Amino acid sequence: MQDIEILTSSAGGNSVIHCGAGAFDEYAPQIAGKKFIVTDSNVYRLYGKLIAQTFGDCPVFVLPAGEKSKNYNSLKNILKAMTESGVTRSSTVIAFGGGVVGDIAGLAASLYMRGTGIVQIPTTLLAQVDSSVGGKTAIDFCGVKNAVGAFYQPSQVIVDPLFLRTLPARELRCGLGEIIKYGALDCGIYAALSQNQHDLSDYAFLENVTFDCISHKAKVVAEDERDVSGARKTLNLGHTTGHAFELYYKRKSHGEFVLIGMYYELYIAVRCGICGGHYAESLRALIKKVLKKIPSYSDAQSAAAGAKYDKKNEEQSTVSVIVPKREGESAEIKLPIAEYMQMIGDCAKELKQNG
Amino acid sequence: MQDIEILTSSAGGNSVIHCGAGAFDEYAPQIAGKKFIVTDSNVYRLYGKLIAQTFGDCPVFVLPAGEKSKNYNSLKNILKAMTESGVTRSSTVIAFGGGVVGDIAGLAASLYMRGTGIVQIPTTLLAQVDSSVGGKTAIDFCGVKNAVGAFYQPSQVIVDPLFLRTLPARELRCGLGEIIKYGALDCGIYAALSQNQHDLSDYAFLENVTFDCISHKAKVVAEDERDVSGARKTLNLGHTTGHAFELYYKRKSHGEFVLIGMYYELYIAVRCGICGGHYAESLRALIKKVLKKIPSYSDAQSAAAGAKYDKKNEEQSTVSVIVPKREGESAEIKLPIAEYMQMIGDCAKELKQNG
Repeated sequence: MQDIEILTSSAGGNSVIHCGAGAFDEYAPQIAGKKFIVTDSNVYRLYGKLIAQTFGDCPVFVLPAGEKSKNYNSLKNILKAMTESGVTRSSTVIAFGGGVVGDIAGLAASLYMRGTGIVQIPTTLLAQVDSSVGGKTAIDFCGVKNAVGAFYQPSQVIVDPLFLRTLPARELRCGLGEIIKYGALDCGIYAALSQNQHDLSDYAFLENVTFDCISHKAKVVAEDERDVSGARKTLNLGHTTGHAFELYYKRKSHGEFVLIGMYYELYIAVRCGICGGHYAESLRALIKKVLKKIPSYSDAQSAAAGAKYDKKNEEQSTVSVIVPKREGESAEIKLPIAEYMQMIGDCAKELKQNG
Repeated sequence: MQDIEILTSSAGGNSVIHCGAGAFDEYAPQIAGKKFIVTDSNVYRLYGKLIAQTFGDCPVFVLPAGEKSKNYNSLKNILKAMTESGVTRSSTVIAFGGGVVGDIAGLAASLYMRGTGIVQIPTTLLAQVDSSVGGKTAIDFCGVKNAVGAFYQPSQVIVDPLFLRTLPARELRCGLGEIIKYGALDCGIYAALSQNQHDLSDYAFLENVTFDCISHKAKVVAEDERDVSGARKTLNLGHTTGHAFELYYKRKSHGEFVLIGMYYELYIAVRCGICGGHYAESLRALIKKVLKKIPSYSDAQSAAAGAKYDKKNEEQSTVSVIVPKREGESAEIKLPIAEYMQMIGDCAKELKQNG
């Protein structure tokens, strides 16, 4: 078990990530003071007993599972339950679940009385390697992913591989989506992925690579907490197109759309001459290890139009995508919206032709 | 015209307050980039033309005037209009109006894409001396004042006495409520109030004392931006009881309730032996200069129960009030809720007896 610390100037102060087997048993019972748990219906079914054993008799808010719950009305319901439970500024909200739970509970904690404590206990691979760390909180709004939110650091994140054992294969795939994204940004993670490409779902491998991904993210967040200098923007690799598809097609989950987005944006990078050769081939192969078939959407071009609402864009006439360049290095490409949509459409056509 | 700067570690970075006659004409036209104006129906009726002349053809969101608009649904409507107007992270929201407009527009700006720019242009005396400065934003929620909000510094605050000329007498009274609060915290402001007690509505006096109040607040905010060390808590003098009455009785406005709250809490301070003699008498006289008749609510004790939800309270069984002690000095009194309610009831009875 190892700790990673993120030093920040913001709200909650510094953030400590307790990472590794046994982290839950060691740190969860130590959370002091009045607690308010947010979780979802799937996680509660699996871990309701553990929650009760660990945190005793404290209020538990159970969201319906799924991205649909990450909305303005659910946020209201959480804030209302917090008020009715007598939560105060010195209480701690515990986000016990995946990315949706972490994002919305984090936002509720940041808003309630202008900020209560928040501890993240991510139970999915995706939330462990990425969304629970770094203080980005949000809900979807008016058809735009994460359009309403706050930067608000959790005082602690408890990342325990214990929870991975109950994850369905699809959830592991989603987490691997973000892990491959880190692979495109970090030489060490890329090497680990290449070495383990024949068994990416191995638990020992996942535990180690989770620590590496969080370490990478912690450095980036400490450098650019509020996503203004450009460092943090790199973490959006694959996400511009991924988010646009996610909101348009809905059927798959976030991590799968990140993989699809990476694949489509890699196509753009190759077309623009920014990435190529063996490296591009090997990234494509990694993506296909996790997602056997990349969808060749017939209306990909229309779906991509949603990318104009991405937070990275200074205006809605251009789209900014972060793409792999070479090992451990990414680049930003800014394209007029029409040109971006055209390329996304071309990638879909190519996928269709190649069956 | 003078500038006051607040150095902060948070979100928007530093905050500059341009203060004095001519500030609007000088600084408002300089606000660069895409703009989104939030105002209310009263202010828009008076200043719609000035807004159009100054900011040109940019979207204007007009809230119905009044505290009732400071709610979760109005916040949603503002965020929706921002999305539909294509506001981006580099746009600037301009809060043009009183405290309600400033509080809700500031919160919308903090949440939209996790933060756009915000400039406050306060048009009421209360907003100028107090609420537009310091980055506290909020809406009322579930019957609790400012229960949902964020700390988010405006990049600029433009405080121009020009707008005071169109204020009804009652609005001046409300601003004077907060000014007297500053008088109970700051010797210089207390002296200015004492010297001008025969004409507290004089515009030259108001312009000078506004600068003094903002200077006082700027120092406190720089020391304790997030209201954790105790310094900023002093600015809540009169507000614990004021807020409780405000939500219970509704009929009056915030500044009037601050005056009433100060009067009732001064009674508690005297009963507890913390304040007294000539100083207490003189503060009471100042309050009565502005609010001729302090209401002797027959159900004051029940109304005071709402104070248990105040953000200062660590638990809902005690109530914390900030009271004047001696010139330029305040103190915090923590009371069991029942004792606090009893004293508030006793003060109401005394007011009734004295007619």
